[in-house]
Amino acid sequence: MNPVKVGLLGLGTVGRGTVTVLRRNAAEITRRAGRGIQVSAVAVRDTARARSAGFERLEISDDAERVVRDAEISVVVELMGGLEPARTLVLNAIAHGKHVVTANKALIALHGNEIFAAAQAQGVMVAFEAAVAGGIPIIKAIREGLAANRIEWLAGIINGTGNFIMTEMRDKGRDFTDVLEEAQRLGYAEADPTYDVEGIDAAHKLTILASLAFGVPLQFDRVYTEGISHITRADVFYAEELGYRIKHLGIARRSARGVELRVHPTLVPQRRLIANVEGVMNAVLIKADALGPTLYYGPGAGAEPTASAVVADLVDVVRTLTTDPGNRVPHLAFQSDALSDDPVLPISAVETAYYLRLQAVDRPGVLADVTRILADADISIEAIIQKEPTAGTPHVPIIMLTHRVLESQMDKALARIEALDTTQGKVTRIRLEMLNSA
Amino acid sequence: MNPVKVGLLGLGTVGRGTVTVLRRNAAEITRRAGRGIQVSAVAVRDTARARSAGFERLEISDDAERVVRDAEISVVVELMGGLEPARTLVLNAIAHGKHVVTANKALIALHGNEIFAAAQAQGVMVAFEAAVAGGIPIIKAIREGLAANRIEWLAGIINGTGNFIMTEMRDKGRDFTDVLEEAQRLGYAEADPTYDVEGIDAAHKLTILASLAFGVPLQFDRVYTEGISHITRADVFYAEELGYRIKHLGIARRSARGVELRVHPTLVPQRRLIANVEGVMNAVLIKADALGPTLYYGPGAGAEPTASAVVADLVDVVRTLTTDPGNRVPHLAFQSDALSDDPVLPISAVETAYYLRLQAVDRPGVLADVTRILADADISIEAIIQKEPTAGTPHVPIIMLTHRVLESQMDKALARIEALDTTQGKVTRIRLEMLNSA
Repeated sequence: MNPVKVGLLGLGTVGRGTVTVLRRNAAEITRRAGRGIQVSAVAVRDTARARSAGFERLEISDDAERVVRDAEISVVVELMGGLEPARTLVLNAIAHGKHVVTANKALIALHGNEIFAAAQAQGVMVAFEAAVAGGIPIIKAIREGLAANRIEWLAGIINGTGNFIMTEMRDKGRDFTDVLEEAQRLGYAEADPTYDVEGIDAAHKLTILASLAFGVPLQFDRVYTEGISHITRADVFYAEELGYRIKHLGIARRSARGVELRVHPTLVPQRRLIANVEGVMNAVLIKADALGPTLYYGPGAGAEPTASAVVADLVDVVRTLTTDPGNRVPHLAFQSDALSDDPVLPISAVETAYYLRLQAVDRPGVLADVTRILADADISIEAIIQKEPTAGTPHVPIIMLTHRVLESQMDKALARIEALDTTQGKVTRIRLEMLNSA
Repeated sequence: MNPVKVGLLGLGTVGRGTVTVLRRNAAEITRRAGRGIQVSAVAVRDTARARSAGFERLEISDDAERVVRDAEISVVVELMGGLEPARTLVLNAIAHGKHVVTANKALIALHGNEIFAAAQAQGVMVAFEAAVAGGIPIIKAIREGLAANRIEWLAGIINGTGNFIMTEMRDKGRDFTDVLEEAQRLGYAEADPTYDVEGIDAAHKLTILASLAFGVPLQFDRVYTEGISHITRADVFYAEELGYRIKHLGIARRSARGVELRVHPTLVPQRRLIANVEGVMNAVLIKADALGPTLYYGPGAGAEPTASAVVADLVDVVRTLTTDPGNRVPHLAFQSDALSDDPVLPISAVETAYYLRLQAVDRPGVLADVTRILADADISIEAIIQKEPTAGTPHVPIIMLTHRVLESQMDKALARIEALDTTQGKVTRIRLEMLNSA
């Protein structure tokens, strides 16, 4: 059979990885797919730079519009990143009857509903395995592997930069800013690290995972997003002392009242597998009703790991070329006319346990005041550590773990604690999840 | 669309789980698959017992032959276990143009080549996700998710009973026989535990994984298989002291000389995620060239976890009903005419590091004799522990970790050590794998 012809938009890190993997493993891929996959045209902004990548026999131009219209091309692979012109080009490719493979999480999280509707109308596929957790086949696992299940919740380390920072803070006892600088030196973090450390990148991915898991539309703007820049070395240390580890998690949970979508630092029991995912690695833990807990672990970024997902999507698309569109795996796991309108809960309506750290005057009665306020708000305390004062400060840290409580209730209690004369500044709160499979 | 009609062979643990999941999650499954899945006939040996399971509206008979011929039925689900009559019924179902879903690892490992050839000739699918690692979508991950990669090796905890025993031996400092009896009481181990503790069940699953990973035919009889019944509490303890944990692993590796297929107890560094997979849980770690290391973790047995895989296969098969057979995912990941004939290496040709434990007379010079023999065989020592003698025995245990060496070379050295006057009995050897991703 003739090879399937593919047009590539973008030849950055992932684009070069994709061409490399398609060429190096051409024999292996053909033995699996039953036919070859050939990159027949590449469009980039800077053709001189793209040509310096040194790929032989690669037709490079700066005319992306021509690639998405090229009658020879069956699949357009969008690896430019960013919202525009990626969105317009993807929609144009669809309009010209091309299948699309993309690694663009922001594009799918923000414009996926529009893109999938267009693809559905044209009878083409849009595949996006590389958009979440790099090369880990997590979208395939949820969409196909777990198709028998009602998924109850999922929790993921879905940003490698953030996990690298949390790992280093714990392993080496270093401060956030210190580790961030190292991550930037190593190329794990961008010059502007906002997307990674403030959780926006993770929120894009969580948006996608939640839709696949629960059959709700993509709704990035409803994700509660909190970064890790306020986590101190002391918090990491106290968490360890209490038997927990702080991870930056994306969490989606389905309850009777609605769907929770949240990205925030989270205390997790040390013995959990996900607490032991280190460095830039990613992992997603899913609790499904029939299957129970499963975890998927691997590299969440990088040229070839991401290319692995892009090429797997290409093989899948090649296989669906002769499938009746109605029988294909639906873009968001559920048939497009069977999405549910379960509301997304605001963070105030979410219930979790908490780690609290506050600075208090070292004087009898202060702890009694604080615990009284929590008791009045019906918040039970699971553990308390009160540290000795350090020389030169009149304040001592008090660390508490609470049982589960509504966030709105915690807000009120913390406002009262912060208003006490005997406490100083804001209370640090970090949510705590047991992530047990019961 | 009309629901797809399914015939079920067997209504044991997994069969009942499958009917339960299909019914409880019918709405969710239909929202994903686009059409319903209906069990329209069940064949069992003991109809009275099957009826006592209490499912309403379930047509139960003892006529399996009628089910595999039923013109109304599109998919036959084989959940009887065992080789016969399962093999004959599956072949008959295929001959009548039915797709087949099975959870039967022994059947696939031993007769898969024959069954897939028959299915290929008839243009039907045989799906077997439930045959390996229960509900974990590991077959899908390898066959589709990793389709871009050259897979280098994989290592799996693919028998929950064995992992439960190893975990309890370590956690509670208990003996093998003691823990085995508890596992039998808890229903984790069969009355005849041979298949689990001697590694036969794991070898069935490894056979399947290796074919999917490397594109070689199924060859169960080439798997080197060693159980865990000879592992002592002392070995578990010494391994921990050296920074390792003993896991019963199935390992498949591709080298320039051939393919390694082996099931044996293995020392793994404690910090590896797979070393921390506990109790009856399963996990498979895969090293692929583009993707790097990924790990898949979850319940490897049980009614509903296994049913989760059976039903996922049903949804997949329903989706391929309109796919041109040539475009379907090949049974063994690679096109049937593209399997390779890489030889399977005998265990003597495999290279690993070793943990050695021997009993020696507590007398100067013994350690020198032993290390001299290893040095003569070009075996480097990584660590040695020599314990104090315990009261009442003239022997002391010597524990050593070696660097990597060919098994045949180790065989010769151990024969010489065992022949020394100053050593007692056989040397315990447990292979050691770093399982690092480099």
